[in-house]
Amino acid sequence: MTKMNENRLNKLRQILNQNGLDFAYISDFKTIQYLTGFGSNPYERILAMVVFSDQDPFIFAPALEVEVVKSVGWPYGLYGYQDNEDGLQMIYDHIKERIAQPKKAAVEKDNLTLSRFYPLQTAFPETDFSFDLTPVIERLRLIKESDEIEKLKQAGHDADLAFEAGFKALKAGKSELQIAAELEYATKSRNVPEMSFGTLVQTAEHAADPHGETSSLPLKNNALVLFDLGTVYKGYISDASRTVALGTPSDHMREVHQIVLEAQLAAQAAVKPGKTAAEIDKTARDIIEKAGFGQYFIHRLGHGMGMSEHEFPSIMQGNDLVLEPGMCFSIEPGIYIPNDLGVRIEDCVYVTKDGCEPFTHMSKKLQQFG
Amino acid sequence: MTKMNENRLNKLRQILNQNGLDFAYISDFKTIQYLTGFGSNPYERILAMVVFSDQDPFIFAPALEVEVVKSVGWPYGLYGYQDNEDGLQMIYDHIKERIAQPKKAAVEKDNLTLSRFYPLQTAFPETDFSFDLTPVIERLRLIKESDEIEKLKQAGHDADLAFEAGFKALKAGKSELQIAAELEYATKSRNVPEMSFGTLVQTAEHAADPHGETSSLPLKNNALVLFDLGTVYKGYISDASRTVALGTPSDHMREVHQIVLEAQLAAQAAVKPGKTAAEIDKTARDIIEKAGFGQYFIHRLGHGMGMSEHEFPSIMQGNDLVLEPGMCFSIEPGIYIPNDLGVRIEDCVYVTKDGCEPFTHMSKKLQQFG
Repeated sequence: MTKMNENRLNKLRQILNQNGLDFAYISDFKTIQYLTGFGSNPYERILAMVVFSDQDPFIFAPALEVEVVKSVGWPYGLYGYQDNEDGLQMIYDHIKERIAQPKKAAVEKDNLTLSRFYPLQTAFPETDFSFDLTPVIERLRLIKESDEIEKLKQAGHDADLAFEAGFKALKAGKSELQIAAELEYATKSRNVPEMSFGTLVQTAEHAADPHGETSSLPLKNNALVLFDLGTVYKGYISDASRTVALGTPSDHMREVHQIVLEAQLAAQAAVKPGKTAAEIDKTARDIIEKAGFGQYFIHRLGHGMGMSEHEFPSIMQGNDLVLEPGMCFSIEPGIYIPNDLGVRIEDCVYVTKDGCEPFTHMSKKLQQFG
Repeated sequence: MTKMNENRLNKLRQILNQNGLDFAYISDFKTIQYLTGFGSNPYERILAMVVFSDQDPFIFAPALEVEVVKSVGWPYGLYGYQDNEDGLQMIYDHIKERIAQPKKAAVEKDNLTLSRFYPLQTAFPETDFSFDLTPVIERLRLIKESDEIEKLKQAGHDADLAFEAGFKALKAGKSELQIAAELEYATKSRNVPEMSFGTLVQTAEHAADPHGETSSLPLKNNALVLFDLGTVYKGYISDASRTVALGTPSDHMREVHQIVLEAQLAAQAAVKPGKTAAEIDKTARDIIEKAGFGQYFIHRLGHGMGMSEHEFPSIMQGNDLVLEPGMCFSIEPGIYIPNDLGVRIEDCVYVTKDGCEPFTHMSKKLQQFG
């Protein structure tokens, strides 16, 4: 848990005032984490934060989270509810205590479900809920502040050490799961609290499935092994991929790896303020297409990242978003040839005033082990 | 991935017919997993399944998932989309190819967000979307079939072995994270693909926070250690808690542990068809209250489980749901005394025709280590 950030809350209040909004109903726990430092997935329980244009905000949380919210230094309203209480009605009552008849309010349309929105609308039948808070929050989160970059750097450092542990574990005959287990054990033993997602280790042709899972398949000798991993540091993540060789790679393996590497390096070198997300994607895609492997690069070049690996900006064709300093995203071209092999190389980067810097520094060359 | 289950799809088709529904728009990937065997979280990408009352269903998935859907033996319509395509519009077109003017359709209100629902409503302005599919799916998933129970038993067995590994790792001075790392390493080395959630290890007074996290705190001697863990087997989970002693526990620790154990055993013994969820909660709660610790039992007794630990039925006050054979849920009373200690003992069980059986069998007595 990190301490709350009053600056972000002030920015949101400004936006409410500029748009004549009485309050914002925040339902996404990641948004609450961004604004307050308190981050906890409530699952089916109710967690909400209500920010008013001209009054103090409040957090409404399951009773067992109340002490945790206090521990981040939250200085405003805080209400808990027990599992057997009608949490939604309690939230509406707390809003009405402050504003009897709100005219206009914002909700997070990418997060709010129908079963949570309809009762809100029923409780405030005169309120206009058409304002979508999602793009506002996305925009706030899009440009990382320096303290966020520092956390992402630390997470990247942990990812580099995780690669080292994984590479050291490589041995033909061991299962993909065994390698992942050794890698995660070494990482967590260094007090990294959690991986940002289940470590992916894929051998040989299994790596041709870019959404496959780490399995009990044994590692093959003279084949490639693809690693995709991430760690969490104070609520911020790392995410990186490397493809290495176990034994001696064939010329074909070397060629495919080299093309992906060139695409990755070219895209990373192309990043700077003023370029669009689509241009960066095209830089990598052109190289892979010219080499004749275009049909095997079947996903976008990258995704935004920060508190999760599912943020903006999306680095893909059609996205004309202009890059700015502080944006953070992955650059991860791949070539996946069914029944043959898969290669992906990924660094996440942050945009600087004249280029970008990666969060991970593990060598991207075709390293050989075993 | 497990193979698809035509029987479940047929049940859903029946419900559509009984309610005059032209189609069901399924947006929750867990529902798709339940109906098809294909389970993958799409995050910000679009994954949907459309089931018609009198035509074959289709799945609409990101391009990189298409091969995976085929691999579960999905025999019906299957469409992929690239990241730069307008996936939502493509789904609507596929629906319109089959039914030009649907009158009534069902959506999952607990899952569908406003930003995914409004475009659907706009594409089908004449269609009545008021039917909520969420309770229908919950009801289907509530009663586990025998093949689901078998998977849950295997996951429970893996959890028992995980406890063993964790207990073996216990040593004063090691951090909570180190114990969790050793436990998870041993578990994954046995080819368990993933934990169902990050393993919780909490020492001494840290365990008084029932929603705290595994930390770098060192284990204390002559103190309690709380474990909460789970594994995944073919899409089904385990979830269990044990509280054990490192060194010699005080009389106070023994007393609190004994009360929680009695509450857990009494609730488990009370489970049988015909009882309500609230009655089972009360059985445990009464014991803890009579012992004078009622104020420290601050959560519901249990939650439903199966494909995740966030299912129905909720075992809590106010839930008059009548238990039936095949229902699966946790029984996890706890006593959390701030700045002192925390004890939780949890087994997940399935209801049989005259009682219940736990999925985990690790001893619940106060075991001593170190």
